[in-house]
Amino acid sequence: MKIANLIRPLVRELHAYVPGEQPKIAGLIKLNTNENPYPPSPKVLSAVKKAVDGRFRLYPNPTSQPLRQKLAAIHGCGTENVIVGNGSDELLALAIRAFVEPAEVSKGSRSIVQYFTPSYSLYPVLADTHGATKNTVPLGKHFALPTPSELKRGKQWDFKAALSFVTTPNAPSGRGYGRAELEELCKAQKGVLILDEAYVDFAKENALELALKYPNVIISRTFSKAYSLCFQRVGYFIGHPELISALDKIRDSYNVNGLGQVAAVATLDDLEFYRGNFKKVIATRERLSSELASLGFTVSPSEANFVFAKPVKFSAQEWLKKLRDRKILVRWFGYPETKDFLRITIGTDKEADAFLRAVRQILAK
Amino acid sequence: MKIANLIRPLVRELHAYVPGEQPKIAGLIKLNTNENPYPPSPKVLSAVKKAVDGRFRLYPNPTSQPLRQKLAAIHGCGTENVIVGNGSDELLALAIRAFVEPAEVSKGSRSIVQYFTPSYSLYPVLADTHGATKNTVPLGKHFALPTPSELKRGKQWDFKAALSFVTTPNAPSGRGYGRAELEELCKAQKGVLILDEAYVDFAKENALELALKYPNVIISRTFSKAYSLCFQRVGYFIGHPELISALDKIRDSYNVNGLGQVAAVATLDDLEFYRGNFKKVIATRERLSSELASLGFTVSPSEANFVFAKPVKFSAQEWLKKLRDRKILVRWFGYPETKDFLRITIGTDKEADAFLRAVRQILAK
Repeated sequence: MKIANLIRPLVRELHAYVPGEQPKIAGLIKLNTNENPYPPSPKVLSAVKKAVDGRFRLYPNPTSQPLRQKLAAIHGCGTENVIVGNGSDELLALAIRAFVEPAEVSKGSRSIVQYFTPSYSLYPVLADTHGATKNTVPLGKHFALPTPSELKRGKQWDFKAALSFVTTPNAPSGRGYGRAELEELCKAQKGVLILDEAYVDFAKENALELALKYPNVIISRTFSKAYSLCFQRVGYFIGHPELISALDKIRDSYNVNGLGQVAAVATLDDLEFYRGNFKKVIATRERLSSELASLGFTVSPSEANFVFAKPVKFSAQEWLKKLRDRKILVRWFGYPETKDFLRITIGTDKEADAFLRAVRQILAK
Repeated sequence: MKIANLIRPLVRELHAYVPGEQPKIAGLIKLNTNENPYPPSPKVLSAVKKAVDGRFRLYPNPTSQPLRQKLAAIHGCGTENVIVGNGSDELLALAIRAFVEPAEVSKGSRSIVQYFTPSYSLYPVLADTHGATKNTVPLGKHFALPTPSELKRGKQWDFKAALSFVTTPNAPSGRGYGRAELEELCKAQKGVLILDEAYVDFAKENALELALKYPNVIISRTFSKAYSLCFQRVGYFIGHPELISALDKIRDSYNVNGLGQVAAVATLDDLEFYRGNFKKVIATRERLSSELASLGFTVSPSEANFVFAKPVKFSAQEWLKKLRDRKILVRWFGYPETKDFLRITIGTDKEADAFLRAVRQILAK
């Protein structure tokens, strides 16, 4: 028996997504996966601790009902507008399976997953896993969002694509997009459009209202980054009830673990705490950006919890190694449009100082 | 814009899986979703509590590495034989996506998801979600597993089906299957064969060694039922590294939440505690079975943590309602092959007594 023959050809040919390293090295400063440097609110930790008991033997709420109710109240929509996932990554994958035909089933726009480059490196992986057709369009100068008329002129963007993703603020550049410019795209786009707001709490504006105004628009959010809950895997989508219900039909029945639901509910009860963290992260980001600029780096203005910077003296890939030698981990993406940059997660002020010290040492050598 | 047109026709036509009810009714005796009546080990709860801290801000181990290492050591295999999922349901869904072509892509055996009836009611839902072709063969008398020669004579079973599921012990009947008879099927089957051992800790034998002997055979296990961890969503597969690696490529990067991993690792450190629970559940099962039989019910011999019983005097569906009126929740499946039975989860002895009291009251009316 040839074992490979048991596996779908599509899957055999896949390359798995490579998540940022999670190494266990003593003293390592980890600025590579955009985790929040600050722990969750003590109230969240205490709510989770209180829920650790014999109820573990029971299934969690299958529809994350209490969490969805609270999200709906906060966002001024109905629970039928909300679906909760095992991290927003699960929901992004579900969206492709709900809205996009595999290329072997349907050609043309119905099979297209579309996004700008650079953006979240998971989109192509999810598209390939489903056997969808990828369509990419480069962002403009300084990672600007092309306007619908620019996109029409460029002819590459498909306004009827089954599914399009916009990372807003953009990752890995950190560039923020205004609600008004996003609305122009929402108006022009005929297929489903997901505004992936994973980093929006560090930005000037969010576009949530567009998901409630345009029936083909979905907002993706996560508790991982801004709310320091990476460990417990909770993300959500807001959108039209018909789209949400399609996603709901194809998710696993108990997709969100119980303590993740508890943690997310408690988070929403203590938003003031997190607003304090956002301010700290933003202050550190602005200081780091200006100090890096003063050292000659070209730093993209960021509205996220990371900065994207083109280094001087050595290539970005060399910087990656030199920083790692000094126990500082940042992220580097080897695509043509990103290979000249380092993505540096905003840590604590102490971590930023250590990073800047290392940069100065490397420059001085 | 017609919103339904944004959704794949396949998904539009789906009926979602209906999980057993999780109602919050005071005093309700919940014998409907095969949860364990006993809480997890105090050592597990304490390990989880200890892990509730600032580390929440960090991603969990993306490959569940410490848990996979421990599972490999216990099962006498390599970590490359093990994949961990967000409950075994996630892995069952991944298996269909990794090994089965949608019917729109490929006709014949390559698109077939095959299972016996009755068995786990999720299989057809997962097959439909993927657009696969379902092939079902009825179990034999008293839910016996047909032998390969019986299957050949029956002509309906496809020995080349891309993916076949055997629930062992069977759900909803509880019928246990021996390793030897399962091995006959493993030998005869050319496609991937998943032995779904969700309830195996309550059975006389398990078939784990078959997954290490036959490269097309995978064993599915879960921490939910026997290990009282429904709430935290952890299941796993054991199988050939090539099949495991195919599944690994298409799973979400951080599919298993951090505290679920912690809880599962701690569970494996305290297996003795759980063996005590298994004995208690089995003793209650045997007592409940014989008392129900003495009241005239036809009770299938069970090797699981539930019994499947054909009631007297009223139809099974009427019993469902009458029991619910007495705040006792059991499960009823309306398929032709199951509609005459009730599936009763084994609770505590006290719950079994309350259930039997209610049955006697209903019979006496």
